[in-house]
Amino acid sequence: MTQDEQALLARFARTTESMVSSEEFQDLLRSGRQLRIKYGVDVTAPFLHIGHAVNLWMIRQLQDLGHKAVFLIGDFTTRIGDPTGRNKLRPVLSREEIADNMQRFLEQARMVLRFDDPRLLEIRYNSEWYDALSAQELLQLLAQVTHARLIGRDMFQERIRQGLDIHMHELIYPVLQGYDSVMLHSDLTIIGSDQLFNEMLGRFYQERQGQRPQVIITTRITPGIDGKAKQSKSLGNYIGLGHSPRDKFGRAMSIPDELILPYLEVYTDVSTEELRELAAQVAIEPMRCKLRLAYELVCRYHGEAVAEQEQQWFLETFSTRRTPDEMPVLTIEAGEYNALAVLQRFFAGSKSNRELRRLFTQGAVSLNGETLWVPEQPVSALNGAVFRVGKRTWFRVEEC
Amino acid sequence: MTQDEQALLARFARTTESMVSSEEFQDLLRSGRQLRIKYGVDVTAPFLHIGHAVNLWMIRQLQDLGHKAVFLIGDFTTRIGDPTGRNKLRPVLSREEIADNMQRFLEQARMVLRFDDPRLLEIRYNSEWYDALSAQELLQLLAQVTHARLIGRDMFQERIRQGLDIHMHELIYPVLQGYDSVMLHSDLTIIGSDQLFNEMLGRFYQERQGQRPQVIITTRITPGIDGKAKQSKSLGNYIGLGHSPRDKFGRAMSIPDELILPYLEVYTDVSTEELRELAAQVAIEPMRCKLRLAYELVCRYHGEAVAEQEQQWFLETFSTRRTPDEMPVLTIEAGEYNALAVLQRFFAGSKSNRELRRLFTQGAVSLNGETLWVPEQPVSALNGAVFRVGKRTWFRVEEC
Repeated sequence: MTQDEQALLARFARTTESMVSSEEFQDLLRSGRQLRIKYGVDVTAPFLHIGHAVNLWMIRQLQDLGHKAVFLIGDFTTRIGDPTGRNKLRPVLSREEIADNMQRFLEQARMVLRFDDPRLLEIRYNSEWYDALSAQELLQLLAQVTHARLIGRDMFQERIRQGLDIHMHELIYPVLQGYDSVMLHSDLTIIGSDQLFNEMLGRFYQERQGQRPQVIITTRITPGIDGKAKQSKSLGNYIGLGHSPRDKFGRAMSIPDELILPYLEVYTDVSTEELRELAAQVAIEPMRCKLRLAYELVCRYHGEAVAEQEQQWFLETFSTRRTPDEMPVLTIEAGEYNALAVLQRFFAGSKSNRELRRLFTQGAVSLNGETLWVPEQPVSALNGAVFRVGKRTWFRVEEC
Repeated sequence: MTQDEQALLARFARTTESMVSSEEFQDLLRSGRQLRIKYGVDVTAPFLHIGHAVNLWMIRQLQDLGHKAVFLIGDFTTRIGDPTGRNKLRPVLSREEIADNMQRFLEQARMVLRFDDPRLLEIRYNSEWYDALSAQELLQLLAQVTHARLIGRDMFQERIRQGLDIHMHELIYPVLQGYDSVMLHSDLTIIGSDQLFNEMLGRFYQERQGQRPQVIITTRITPGIDGKAKQSKSLGNYIGLGHSPRDKFGRAMSIPDELILPYLEVYTDVSTEELRELAAQVAIEPMRCKLRLAYELVCRYHGEAVAEQEQQWFLETFSTRRTPDEMPVLTIEAGEYNALAVLQRFFAGSKSNRELRRLFTQGAVSLNGETLWVPEQPVSALNGAVFRVGKRTWFRVEEC
């Protein structure tokens, strides 16, 4: 194995959850062939966050060694409706919607993958083979698998437990996804673990057809930026490839400290040596480490110049006690208030009095740059005054 | 409703187990339209006994009122493999085997149905529509049914209980059989109850396609001629349409007395009035009633002349103590034996000594027309002697 390949294996270890199997993967690398890496594009939700991008970056590293990314646009299977992760029937998309979504997906994927060399990229549609497939051929595929195997999939069992319907085309969906690997001659696929069941069927059908079964790599998942569930669009706790550099930077800065290291490991290119140094510092200087993470994240997608600029903007705005250019305005009647009363008006019930009082005792409230320790502190001549609450909430007062 | 139609309803009541629904069936008869009666031919086992023929006779009565029998040759679905009543995967037949089997089926069906008028008969192959069906169209059919509905079929549940595999094409089979009804515009199908599940799917798909759902009639099942399980080829306890008139007559004569009436009701054309008379006589004169059954059965398939002739042959042969023309020969060395020893040699272990001794005490063993009551009775000069054992076993002895 070349040094590059060994470096790739080491790099993959940081983002890999499981491999079926690592021996087979090493064999593939040693084979000297150009590998075909299947990547199924979800055309129903063409939205990528940095978690999805982990897979793309791994593929990018393979591209850099001369291997080929094979995007599979499941236009046929999308018309059928993938049940993965769904407790109810998926809506079926029209051809136009699929084309639009594919366009949006490619715009984001371009931030990671090499699109410049046709030898490194292939875009395929599974309608190529499924539009021509006869019912008889489909039945022959179905004859090779048992009901017990398909219904054993965890999400189907979950639906049964919940008394929810499974429609027959949904039960069959994994067969189609598996057979895609045969048609693509996939050597390798890099997926989220929720796709493992379907891709194992790929190995099954490939072996039946006399092909070498594809290697399957599932990738690591971290909590979302709120430190809780994994990143998802509906929860809003993600860093999206479509987010502006400023937004990416700010979102990275908002994560809980215990995520700094996992995020650095999984979502950035910081070298393993530097990771080790940062691990030693994170408890002492979390803010510096988090800045490094935010910088590296922006750098990865937008380059050094933009990362530099966003870091500078962030530091000037938030860390040097200058207030940001735009901030929300609280309009109140002129008069004398205590500090707590002003905050109560601004948060309008979204924080309890206890929470607000705690912010004061933590030194997290400031007025025009001066920390306010006492909630009952009287404040007046408020027109134009700037309050800061916690790390990222700022507002300006206007008297009326 | 015409008198003929009312007669048909009364006649159907004798052989019907269930109807979905009888109101719908009466509506169909009243409609004045020519009805299309779907009859799925089992081309894997093209063998008809009088139980199967019950369905054909009902269709014949509908033909006689001008309705059309639609034979459906499931050549496509047979290539797939019908799991009905199977605990393991069905072997898949070649096109040649299917054609051969179809020929054999038609030879038997000709004994019942009218083949002389093309307005009364249509022969269809489901490859007509399934060969042209795309995988996508099949998936659209599958999208309409749930897993719970298909897996609920009793035979699938039984397989699960037994830990046996269900292959996915088997699970889907009922969808195809159901969709056949749509393609045939079936008004009515007359089936064994093991097909009810599949034909209910026919109603389901017909309604979905805006068709009036077919009426389903399931037919009565009697025990086999041994009085035990229903007639089946493997048990040998049946009267086959392919049996010779003599064999039909003899098999009918061999049934237990308690089956005489059910057999007359289900398998013959004896009028309902005469049935009532026979019901009164069967306890007093079972042999006369059984002769009537055997006569009617042969008459139904081979006509009066043949029935007359077989009845005469049977009476002369078995009832007047004359021996049949052809009988098996037992070759033994000349010498003196006791009667039991001769029977032992003839049955060669297929009956135990206890069974044989019981036959003697029942007076069921005779030598040249004389009952032998004692197993140890010496017998000699056996060349040409005729033994009778029970009602129907005869053999001649030849000394060597």
